[in-house]
Amino acid sequence: MVVPTTDLPTRVRIHEVGARDGLQNEKATVPTEVKAEFVRRLAEAGLTTIEATSFVHPKWVPQLADAEQLYPLVADLPVALPVLVPNERGLDRALALGARRVAVFASATESFAKANLNRTVDEALAMFDPVVARAKADDVHVRGYLSMCFGDPWEGAVPIPQVVRVCKALLDMGCDELSLGDTIGVATPGHVVALLAALDEAGIPPSVLGVHFHDTYGQALANTLAALQQGVTTVDASAGGLGGCPYAKSATGNLATEDLVWMLRGLGIDTGIDLGRLVATSAWMANRLGRPSPSRTVRALSHEDTEEQ
Amino acid sequence: MVVPTTDLPTRVRIHEVGARDGLQNEKATVPTEVKAEFVRRLAEAGLTTIEATSFVHPKWVPQLADAEQLYPLVADLPVALPVLVPNERGLDRALALGARRVAVFASATESFAKANLNRTVDEALAMFDPVVARAKADDVHVRGYLSMCFGDPWEGAVPIPQVVRVCKALLDMGCDELSLGDTIGVATPGHVVALLAALDEAGIPPSVLGVHFHDTYGQALANTLAALQQGVTTVDASAGGLGGCPYAKSATGNLATEDLVWMLRGLGIDTGIDLGRLVATSAWMANRLGRPSPSRTVRALSHEDTEEQ
Repeated sequence: MVVPTTDLPTRVRIHEVGARDGLQNEKATVPTEVKAEFVRRLAEAGLTTIEATSFVHPKWVPQLADAEQLYPLVADLPVALPVLVPNERGLDRALALGARRVAVFASATESFAKANLNRTVDEALAMFDPVVARAKADDVHVRGYLSMCFGDPWEGAVPIPQVVRVCKALLDMGCDELSLGDTIGVATPGHVVALLAALDEAGIPPSVLGVHFHDTYGQALANTLAALQQGVTTVDASAGGLGGCPYAKSATGNLATEDLVWMLRGLGIDTGIDLGRLVATSAWMANRLGRPSPSRTVRALSHEDTEEQ
Repeated sequence: MVVPTTDLPTRVRIHEVGARDGLQNEKATVPTEVKAEFVRRLAEAGLTTIEATSFVHPKWVPQLADAEQLYPLVADLPVALPVLVPNERGLDRALALGARRVAVFASATESFAKANLNRTVDEALAMFDPVVARAKADDVHVRGYLSMCFGDPWEGAVPIPQVVRVCKALLDMGCDELSLGDTIGVATPGHVVALLAALDEAGIPPSVLGVHFHDTYGQALANTLAALQQGVTTVDASAGGLGGCPYAKSATGNLATEDLVWMLRGLGIDTGIDLGRLVATSAWMANRLGRPSPSRTVRALSHEDTEEQ
C-alpha cells in the first residue's frame, strides 16, 4: 500500500554503486562483458545514475582493472555514469574515454586515510585539489566520497566537527556533491540527524549531500529514513546489496537498492525504477557470482516470480 | 556514538518472541532443556518480557508440544513470561502451571483468520471472548496479537478501518495490550504512521500498542523507527532474528532483537539489555539449530568477539 508521509521528499535519486563499490572486492574476476551487461540491465530497470567503474591503479583494485575496456561498452547508455578517480592519472584515463562525471574519495579520519590512501587527511585533500580543479575546468561533474563519517574501526566514534571540516574542504575545492559514508555500518538514526543538522548549520544543505549506508548492523534503511526526514534526496545503494568493506570485520554490504526501492515505493516517493526488472537483474548477477543476494527483497521476490532468466 | 533525538521515547520495552514465535516453525525438535536454557540466557541478557511457549494443540505446533514441561523450568525467572493460548483449553493448561500473562492471536483479515484459525474474524473474536474474560477475572495480563495488519498474502493491502475495528474489539474484550503484526513484512514507514494515527484517533493510544515487524523485505527496523516516532514504546523482536511465517512465501524472520538493540542503544534509549550477552545467546542458539543467525548484528559481533561459548 502506498502511504506518503508529509515530512519526506517527493522524489529521490538513487546513486547506484553495485557495479563499482559492489564488485570491487569480488575475488574471482568478473568478465568485462558481464559487468557491461549488469550496467545495461540496471539502466533498463530505470536507474539514472550508475557508478560504472574505478580508475584506481589495477594493483589496488584488480577486479576493476578493465575500466578502459568496460567504459566504452556502456558509455552510450542514456544515464549518468560516474567513475571513481583517485588522482590526476586516473582523471586522465577517465577523461580520455569521455567520462563526464567523476568521483574522488576522501576520509573523515586519519586512520582510514592512512589505511586506504597512505596519506594524512590533508595530504589526500591536497592530492584531490588539482583533480577537482581540472575536472571542473572541463565542466565535469565531481562527487566527493567521504568515508568513515560516523565510526572508524581504529578510532571509534568520529567527532562531527571533524566530518564537517572535511566536507567543507571538499566543497570549497569544487565538488558538486558529497556522499557521506558509514563505511563500517555503525551509525544509528540520531547520529545521522545530528551530522546532517551540523552540516546544515555550517552552510552545507541536504541538497548537496548523498548518504551511503552499510548494513553491517542492519541499520542502513532506518538511517536512510532518518536522512530523508532531514531533507536528503540522494541515496547511494547497491543492487542486490553487493559489496562490503575490506577494512571492516565481517562487513556485510551496502544498502540493497531493492530494499530501498521497496520502502520508497511504499512511501509514494518517485524513483522511476521498475522493481521487478531490478530484482531480476540482481538475481541474474547473484547467479553469475555464484551466491545468493543478501538483499531481503531480492530473496523474497525472486523466490516468487523472477527465477533466473 | 550515542546520539538521542528529541522525538523519541526515552525507554522502550522489548517483547522478546524468539523462544515462541522464533522456534515454533523449526522442523527438528529442539530439546526442552535447550529451550529453557535459551529463555534463561535471554533473561540474563536483560530481557524483561520473554514469551516462553504456546499452549496451542500440539497437532498444530508440534515444536511447542512440550509447553507443560518447559514452563516450570523457567517459571521462577524474575521476568514476565507470557504464553500463547488459543482457546479456553489452552488457558486452562497455562493457568494450571501458574502463568500470569497470556496472549491470544486474532487476524485483521478474513483470509488469514480462515487459514490460521479456520474461522471468520468475528468467530475467532467470539472464541477469544471467554478466554480474555476468564483471564481478566484471575487478574492475568492479556496481550492480543493481531496478524496481517498491513498486507495479507491473499487480500493485498489491508484497509486501515478494518484493522482499527479488530483492535477495538480486542480492547473492548479486555485485552491489556495489543501487538500489531506485519506478518508478511510488506509494511513501509508511511503505512505504519497512518495506522498508528488512525488508531490514536479512534481512542487507541500508542501506550497500549506494541509493533511486530518482519524483515521479509528488509523494512522491519525502519518501520520500528517510524513507530517509535509516533510514541510506541513496546517493540516485539526475536533474538537472532529467529522465526518466519509459514504462510508467507520465502518469509525471513522477525526483526532481530540485536539489530533493534543496536539502534536503540545508539539513540540513547534505555532497554537494560547487555548486547554482548544477547549476541552470545543468539550465537549459541544458532549453533544448536545448526545454521547462522540471520541477524546482521549477531553476525558482525559474534565474528568479532563472541565465538561459540
